[in-house]
Amino acid sequence: MVNLILFHPQELESELPLNDPRAIHILETLRRTELQSFDAGIVNGPKGKATLVKKNSSSLLLSFSWEDAGPKTELISLIIGLSRPQTARKILREATAIGIHSIYFVTTEKSDPAYAHSKLWTTGEYKRHLISGAEQAFTTQIPHIYHQGNLEEAIALSSANRTKIAFDNYEATGSFSTCSITPPVVLALGPERGWSNPERELLRSSDYQLCHLGTRVLRTETACTAALTLTRAKLNLI
Amino acid sequence: MVNLILFHPQELESELPLNDPRAIHILETLRRTELQSFDAGIVNGPKGKATLVKKNSSSLLLSFSWEDAGPKTELISLIIGLSRPQTARKILREATAIGIHSIYFVTTEKSDPAYAHSKLWTTGEYKRHLISGAEQAFTTQIPHIYHQGNLEEAIALSSANRTKIAFDNYEATGSFSTCSITPPVVLALGPERGWSNPERELLRSSDYQLCHLGTRVLRTETACTAALTLTRAKLNLI
Repeated sequence: MVNLILFHPQELESELPLNDPRAIHILETLRRTELQSFDAGIVNGPKGKATLVKKNSSSLLLSFSWEDAGPKTELISLIIGLSRPQTARKILREATAIGIHSIYFVTTEKSDPAYAHSKLWTTGEYKRHLISGAEQAFTTQIPHIYHQGNLEEAIALSSANRTKIAFDNYEATGSFSTCSITPPVVLALGPERGWSNPERELLRSSDYQLCHLGTRVLRTETACTAALTLTRAKLNLI
Repeated sequence: MVNLILFHPQELESELPLNDPRAIHILETLRRTELQSFDAGIVNGPKGKATLVKKNSSSLLLSFSWEDAGPKTELISLIIGLSRPQTARKILREATAIGIHSIYFVTTEKSDPAYAHSKLWTTGEYKRHLISGAEQAFTTQIPHIYHQGNLEEAIALSSANRTKIAFDNYEATGSFSTCSITPPVVLALGPERGWSNPERELLRSSDYQLCHLGTRVLRTETACTAALTLTRAKLNLI
């Protein structure tokens, strides 16, 4: 469901083509006519109202008024083993909806290297799922996405986080729900088949605590929603 | 992913037909041959090991040894406004995976009454998604499902719960993450378009606290995973 229509800053000065999915949504789903308004936002900028000023033969002329200062910096990042594209799509959309600073999709020993060559990544399709998650969640905030590195590179890029948690069903030393955390936080979730032993060693030597999310074996996208939700609750963001 | 193969009690005495999806999984995915074993469970009973004793021309002869006493009673129930069948499928599967006692899918003022006539419900297809969630999560526990009542009936059927929470984006008095709860717990989540005012009044007069899950507007299945995860963490079940 689209609860907020997002625009990139460079789009604000030009008219919106009638074949743009947002124009179709404005006219057909929201049924807006001239001089009516709807909720809009600028990607990583403020939210506000857009007004349909005029419907031209091939485009919509819109005007905007912005109401807030834009989103605060999110405090959680996620490192995640490359998963099947259909799973990655859900993670992109739902993690964006819940609220996240960065997602690092990494190649791991137990993830299929073919996943990195999916059209999800090679065509830039992944950006569409971020917008979809933000439009659902009524936020303008789009996370940074990294999808071409391995676990070691992602650990290095996210090393400034103050709390580092890796989820592991096999060698966890305790439950995540009893961990105390200080923001910013990076969470590392393995691919569906889990971490390899060298990856566990790398995580431990990089100051990651190995935690579990209970005894149930969850699908990657469900574990991702659960981990992000618990972290946001611990940070008093819910 | 199937991490545990489930059998109904009445299936244990007969051979498993080769065209049963579980037989295909045992032979083709797990690649088990005669006298090899795999993880198995009885629906709402113990887990243990099954051994492929013999592959006959049209069936598998299995033997079983059970290792635990079966699952404990789950402490959380969910009342949820009937949603699109594709959303309901995810909720059935993921709520079962996370762990839940009962789910009441209810007609509400803002849910489409056609959803109740989906083949998901009329053909019994919904049972398959429960098994799928349990097989993923390595549990034998399958929730009770009610799908023919309205909100009032579900409230009455679940009235013995000690904590009653309804999620509402508009009239919540506080965040769920600050609520203290005593098990057993019933959580009520509206349909995608939310509760009507009479439904809110009914919930309040039935001792439900109206809470929110933060400012982000989540898809129903994501809100469901988030609410169940937070509740399990509060009950020290994670």
